[in-house]
Amino acid sequence: MKKLGVLGPRGTHSEAAANYLQKISEEKFELVICSEIFEILHKVEKGILDSGFVPVENSLEGSINITLDTLARSKTLIINRELVWRIHNHLMAKEGTKLSEVTKIFSHAQPISQCRRYLHKNFPDAEFIITPSTARAAEIVANSEENFAAICSERAGELNGLKILAEEIQDNKFNSTRFFEICRCGENYDENNISGDKISLVCMVDGSQAGSLYSVLEEFATRKINMTHIESRPARLELGEYIFFFDLETNVDKKLLLESISAVREKSIWLKNLGSFPIINLLNHSANSQS
Amino acid sequence: MKKLGVLGPRGTHSEAAANYLQKISEEKFELVICSEIFEILHKVEKGILDSGFVPVENSLEGSINITLDTLARSKTLIINRELVWRIHNHLMAKEGTKLSEVTKIFSHAQPISQCRRYLHKNFPDAEFIITPSTARAAEIVANSEENFAAICSERAGELNGLKILAEEIQDNKFNSTRFFEICRCGENYDENNISGDKISLVCMVDGSQAGSLYSVLEEFATRKINMTHIESRPARLELGEYIFFFDLETNVDKKLLLESISAVREKSIWLKNLGSFPIINLLNHSANSQS
Repeated sequence: MKKLGVLGPRGTHSEAAANYLQKISEEKFELVICSEIFEILHKVEKGILDSGFVPVENSLEGSINITLDTLARSKTLIINRELVWRIHNHLMAKEGTKLSEVTKIFSHAQPISQCRRYLHKNFPDAEFIITPSTARAAEIVANSEENFAAICSERAGELNGLKILAEEIQDNKFNSTRFFEICRCGENYDENNISGDKISLVCMVDGSQAGSLYSVLEEFATRKINMTHIESRPARLELGEYIFFFDLETNVDKKLLLESISAVREKSIWLKNLGSFPIINLLNHSANSQS
Repeated sequence: MKKLGVLGPRGTHSEAAANYLQKISEEKFELVICSEIFEILHKVEKGILDSGFVPVENSLEGSINITLDTLARSKTLIINRELVWRIHNHLMAKEGTKLSEVTKIFSHAQPISQCRRYLHKNFPDAEFIITPSTARAAEIVANSEENFAAICSERAGELNGLKILAEEIQDNKFNSTRFFEICRCGENYDENNISGDKISLVCMVDGSQAGSLYSVLEEFATRKINMTHIESRPARLELGEYIFFFDLETNVDKKLLLESISAVREKSIWLKNLGSFPIINLLNHSANSQS
């Protein structure tokens, strides 16, 4: 059976979303719990895993840098599928803990940022400890004798015997995360495949030239190709040098789309096609109402 | 004396850069050590501090989300100055600690990401603990009896009696951070002031329209205005809705620059002028060779 790497321990938002993917997929696969996003992608690259399921963007906190940076730098990794998942963050603690007595709050850095306003208002004096995952935060709180709390999903809390102290504490109820299933491109990988719902590109343009990004966007805009996302990341060289990620909708004339990609490649220092892939959007799906 | 808020405790990269700013500034001010970026900006908004000195972008890890998000949402905060500072990250520990025996590494999330490759290669099994600042990491290591290490500046380590275990461990030697000095815009704030080296804008465009970002960039490109940075951040509404930050060089015809800003304002749902400000670039400056 194929192996899909996912960020653990059990109870993370990633694992909940991957469980759903497992249920709906025709080809069966086994979930392999890993402790870091970088580890997952590294193991996919090396062939130790067949694919990896990793977060790429949250609606409140933005992009997951390690996912974008690793995708951009890898020669072999491509996107196979996208899944959009609703995120529910709760403040959870051991039975008997009172909200007013919480001194330390544990969670992954992303949920802490997603709940920034709530935490600043309700816990101005608490200490915040960043953990590698929300499920790890729940474990730590469960194993402590002190008045600690975790920000995590209901499932992560329940797996560790925690109860909800405060429900849905994120700054905006429309909190959702995009996940990518990432795999190696095989020998038969077709760079011109645009059969998915979207295509994702990353390229480096010459930042020293005024209007170079504009000139790249021109290739999409003049062909009426809709860009659903643009993201700049440091090229990891000097300050002021960037690479750009573009997500494009593929529901246009295929010839025009391929033409625009060729034109952008010409205008770039380098360009990588990260793949064309289907999207599974669960924002209004009952399977994702409790996670 | 005016009060400038800066991320503490003593020994952070922020404090070192703010110390330099203090030395070269004509108007004298007192440094007020704060524990979070959000706290600094909040106190400037409320008038408790006269200004705040906060990181906005690192050359390896990209933007500091909390700084951008707070600037975008505030009605009164503007940028007064920019300072570009070289970052030196070392692995530091108590005298006698051996590199091979280190079990836990403490630091702020940004330096951990900046040293991602080094850490992955040399400490595949170590535990990483995220602290609110690099200086706090040094304090924790200094107060522990175990084989812990901190990623911090030489000064933060020395203030806490730590020694260097491994020098300059960041993934790229060109590691630098841009800082903003941020203040409240007074009653006499002139939106048309473009006398600084750069001007910074943030706006929301209608993401549902194909080519809306392109149409905004057109206003700059056709007037040969150089954009040194573009950054998208979630609008914190639904997935796929973004705000955009633009940094523009002001060394062009002032009339054309003001014209382009008006035109972009017309095309945006909203636009905020974050200020026009001078830049102090210390990348090749001896004062910044050891921090």
